[in-house]
Amino acid sequence: MINKLVEKIKQTNAPIVVGLDPMMGFIPEHITKMAFEEHGETLEGAGEAIWLFNKAIVDSTCDLIPAVKPQIAMYEQFGIPGMTAFKRTVDYCKEKGLIVIGDIKRGDIGSTSSAYAVGHLGKVTVGSKSYYGFDEDFVTVNPYLGSDGVNPFLEVCREEKKGIFVLVKTSNPSSGEFQDRLIDGKPLYELVGEKVAAWGEECMGTDYSYVGAVVGATYPEMGKVLRKVMPKSFILVPGYGAQGGKGKDLVHFFNEDGLGAIVNSSRGIIAAYKNDQYKERFAPENFADASRQAVLDMIDDIAGALGTK
Amino acid sequence: MINKLVEKIKQTNAPIVVGLDPMMGFIPEHITKMAFEEHGETLEGAGEAIWLFNKAIVDSTCDLIPAVKPQIAMYEQFGIPGMTAFKRTVDYCKEKGLIVIGDIKRGDIGSTSSAYAVGHLGKVTVGSKSYYGFDEDFVTVNPYLGSDGVNPFLEVCREEKKGIFVLVKTSNPSSGEFQDRLIDGKPLYELVGEKVAAWGEECMGTDYSYVGAVVGATYPEMGKVLRKVMPKSFILVPGYGAQGGKGKDLVHFFNEDGLGAIVNSSRGIIAAYKNDQYKERFAPENFADASRQAVLDMIDDIAGALGTK
Repeated sequence: MINKLVEKIKQTNAPIVVGLDPMMGFIPEHITKMAFEEHGETLEGAGEAIWLFNKAIVDSTCDLIPAVKPQIAMYEQFGIPGMTAFKRTVDYCKEKGLIVIGDIKRGDIGSTSSAYAVGHLGKVTVGSKSYYGFDEDFVTVNPYLGSDGVNPFLEVCREEKKGIFVLVKTSNPSSGEFQDRLIDGKPLYELVGEKVAAWGEECMGTDYSYVGAVVGATYPEMGKVLRKVMPKSFILVPGYGAQGGKGKDLVHFFNEDGLGAIVNSSRGIIAAYKNDQYKERFAPENFADASRQAVLDMIDDIAGALGTK
Repeated sequence: MINKLVEKIKQTNAPIVVGLDPMMGFIPEHITKMAFEEHGETLEGAGEAIWLFNKAIVDSTCDLIPAVKPQIAMYEQFGIPGMTAFKRTVDYCKEKGLIVIGDIKRGDIGSTSSAYAVGHLGKVTVGSKSYYGFDEDFVTVNPYLGSDGVNPFLEVCREEKKGIFVLVKTSNPSSGEFQDRLIDGKPLYELVGEKVAAWGEECMGTDYSYVGAVVGATYPEMGKVLRKVMPKSFILVPGYGAQGGKGKDLVHFFNEDGLGAIVNSSRGIIAAYKNDQYKERFAPENFADASRQAVLDMIDDIAGALGTK
């Protein structure tokens, strides 16, 4: 799957991923109205609204991008109907040829991490049969529990040729509270980065490993260091756009081959019609067109920064 | 909810929690057969088997214990039907008067942690209405992202009078890889423990705070230190029984009031009928009776260790 990701990035010339994090406030009224008319103001209605919203954005952008990253929390908050909307979204994006990165940030002790790995990347056994549960292509993983929390994901990755992105340095303001603390003179995130590199050695694709890392766009200097610590790992970079990261901040997340990073934007794309930059040109009814324009502008911004325009 | 937990522990004299982590291998054949006859060897069949298994154990033990802790990964691996079994289990346990600790180990950046907090502890807004998604009483939270990943949980806890248990020192063998590393002479888990104490000060029940901690029974010496670092936090202690923790290891997790800790056992209880200790006395058909006996024996072991017999 890492090879497929590299190939699709080359093909689209777009090292970007669209974060499908549909907060209700992002969904235009005509969509929620349609969903609520059918299902009422219920969890099912919310799930339907999310699904209709996602589908329109995917239809409008899928030829431009290699991958999407649904943030499962935004679905999980609506209980079972929300999880059903997540699954529909995953399935539809894969049907459209997109790579799906499930932003699930799971991580537990060994036997329990196995269950997460099986449920999101692999197949679970039921009697004499086996089934994919959620079936993403990549998932994000929290490393706080150490190697035996991560290894079960690696096992499933090898079996399924799928991948993970391990949280190394997250994009939020207080990420430094634990991640930046010095251990033998090195920040914790660097130690985690070293482990990511080591885990990756056991699961290599052609040029990059199945084990990537999450490093926030909001911390470009740390990105520069981590790029060197994990040369064979793809870096998934959140925090671009709405969280403050800019194209020029991203240069150091990439390798000299112009690869090695994939930059996420969520509300900057999916709620583009609400942004000052687009709201005069795009009415709420044309939210998906605004998303397409925002994708084109993001590709342009990053290509400009990387000098690949 | 922390007050209710304390009250129920006093009432049952059982500072224990039964981990409802139903791996398929634990479920006796007569149960899976019944479920598969109705739904086939499908994800729905697995969900039904889990639900029947859980219900029998809950019915057989609910008068003895204050709380249960379903591990969501064991349900999530079966996709939507698994999540439905999780929700049925949560609802049924609450109906039976049990406190439900959702072992979800979520944690993300602020806005995303909000969605998890709302989905598992609070109410989500849909148009003019609001709904509980999964509606546990407590959840476990991963602290790697720092305060702004935890604060949204605290907000919902205050609103709903519910609580969290933050991962501090986990029970698994490699938990030390990051958690034990020294920062200014102190292990990371201790720094996280100090934050737990600080977060807890903002959300106090009568004697204990809404913010507890997870500390593995497999690390009793660290439990002793952490008990003092977080005097007002309940400690949720996994790793008893199958993972190797014993009654005598648990003494230091408790305060002098005999409270402050709640010890989890999962497979030691729910798969008791498979353990050497019980398998001659209990046939697979009587698995729920074996679970009841295992609960009684665990209460006795802990009371013996605490000198409260």
